[in-house]
Amino acid sequence: MAYSMASPLKIAGLVLAGDIRAAARLMRNLDDGDPAARRVLQALYAKSGHAHVVGVTGPPGSGKSTLVDRLIAACRAKGGSVGVVAVDPTSPFSGGAVLGDRIRMQRHAGDPEVFIRSLGTRGSLGGLSRSVFDTVTVLDAMGKDLVLVETAGVGQDGVKVAGAAHTVLVVLSPGMGDDIQAIKAGVLEIGDIYVVNKADKDGADTLERSLRLGLEGAAPRDGWERVVVRTEARSGKGVDELSETILRHRRRLESAGAWERRSGVFPKAAFLELVEDGLRRRLEGLMRRPGPWKKRVNDLTGRRTDPGTAAKAALKDLLG
Amino acid sequence: MAYSMASPLKIAGLVLAGDIRAAARLMRNLDDGDPAARRVLQALYAKSGHAHVVGVTGPPGSGKSTLVDRLIAACRAKGGSVGVVAVDPTSPFSGGAVLGDRIRMQRHAGDPEVFIRSLGTRGSLGGLSRSVFDTVTVLDAMGKDLVLVETAGVGQDGVKVAGAAHTVLVVLSPGMGDDIQAIKAGVLEIGDIYVVNKADKDGADTLERSLRLGLEGAAPRDGWERVVVRTEARSGKGVDELSETILRHRRRLESAGAWERRSGVFPKAAFLELVEDGLRRRLEGLMRRPGPWKKRVNDLTGRRTDPGTAAKAALKDLLG
Repeated sequence: MAYSMASPLKIAGLVLAGDIRAAARLMRNLDDGDPAARRVLQALYAKSGHAHVVGVTGPPGSGKSTLVDRLIAACRAKGGSVGVVAVDPTSPFSGGAVLGDRIRMQRHAGDPEVFIRSLGTRGSLGGLSRSVFDTVTVLDAMGKDLVLVETAGVGQDGVKVAGAAHTVLVVLSPGMGDDIQAIKAGVLEIGDIYVVNKADKDGADTLERSLRLGLEGAAPRDGWERVVVRTEARSGKGVDELSETILRHRRRLESAGAWERRSGVFPKAAFLELVEDGLRRRLEGLMRRPGPWKKRVNDLTGRRTDPGTAAKAALKDLLG
Repeated sequence: MAYSMASPLKIAGLVLAGDIRAAARLMRNLDDGDPAARRVLQALYAKSGHAHVVGVTGPPGSGKSTLVDRLIAACRAKGGSVGVVAVDPTSPFSGGAVLGDRIRMQRHAGDPEVFIRSLGTRGSLGGLSRSVFDTVTVLDAMGKDLVLVETAGVGQDGVKVAGAAHTVLVVLSPGMGDDIQAIKAGVLEIGDIYVVNKADKDGADTLERSLRLGLEGAAPRDGWERVVVRTEARSGKGVDELSETILRHRRRLESAGAWERRSGVFPKAAFLELVEDGLRRRLEGLMRRPGPWKKRVNDLTGRRTDPGTAAKAALKDLLG
């Protein structure tokens, strides 16, 4: 349902006061592309920027959702409030496992200080970064101290989104090819904290050693030396230490003056997605109408020109 | 190595004559963004458009690679030549399974009438559709009768790429949640031929029934009623029938006058990716230089404006 009665400022006031139903409805309306919801978000934007946004990424099966569930509990135990954005895998096929994980996390559903939002990666208007950014902004404006962004770790998009957080957790577990070859170079660059989850399993030592070896030469980022933490999310072992390490990273960012800059990565990514989305719509519109663009497409499909040549001419038209 | 000696037309001539080494080098140079390689592709483009491009998609573990291996053999047995584009999953984490599949397919590596090319989805200049399109064009120009495009089925990109083929195979197997709920609506729209692979396993009957039920109301596409075929790729059972069905679909497209239109989907997608890529580069350049764009980004990260407002202003600047 779109907003027809309440003014954007009134809705914004409710969300800022922590009203759960107002926040949930705002998120739905943002997903539906409701312009009034956009105006609410604009009003909230200036008031947000206080939450600690933590990205949680890693390959399927590494235990991310169980770990997120434990991190929620650890934060609540210290009196903090938590928001979670769980990004579903992009497979259009089946989503069984994810549903199960989501249900597990729901044990926090009765807790008014915990707000969990699942986002599909299909059908979101304006792309994944934009959807996640919108949701994080609402959770932040609600006053959540900690916002966890869990992405499936399949697809560059998921990793990019987790990497836009203040603190990036990379969750790995033994038995997925535990040597350094399996840990691709890119993985060693995105994380602030590396979690060896399922640390009681065979291969955990090898995995930890490979990680430490791979991280050895890495330059500190914002004055932070990347660390490896062992956890057993199922039993909760190691989660307190992980929770402490996350806080330590926050303090390090603040003392290094890097907090503000990291806070800016998400809005910048959302801005770029919106601009690219607008350009794409313009392109699609141009190609449908009679004229040089439609002719270009006809020449392409009739193999009278090739994509590279056509694109060069099109860009010249568009940008002069 | 880029081309410094041979002229684009000479290289194009070699590829058109089926020269394997020239084709392999051209594909590498295209991936590296070599401008001379682009000119070769332009020359090849007008000469291509004869191969039957078949997309093979489906969830991980459904047996796509084994099936592709069998389809290669079936086509070779009838004297046809085959090209394969295998698109790796987009996970930046581990790629063990894919490597194994690739090795399996390599039993055809000694056959000069079979050309297999693996494409990563990272690092390709100008996006996945463009890379796949380039490779398909080269294989097509080499005179391959059949070009199989295998995508991991994870991520919308993979499905989109497979969907740009003349004939789209969706490969499913029992044991992945075998009822109609697990087969999302989108999956029932993309395929021309649905393969129930591992048909000897428990649950194959249920999966087939669910598929048939789901496809019942579907409107024919280009005069083709979507079909379900059972296979056991490991033993080869059902592969001949599948191979026949693929040919039957080709004849149907030709008689319905839809062959040309389907041939145009790939070049159009490649064109759009190139244009969007060019626009993105322009944006990134603008944001780095002092001026209104840099100010916009600073206002964003300082929360003096929000992404939606900034994007609206930016699009007005850019498109007038």
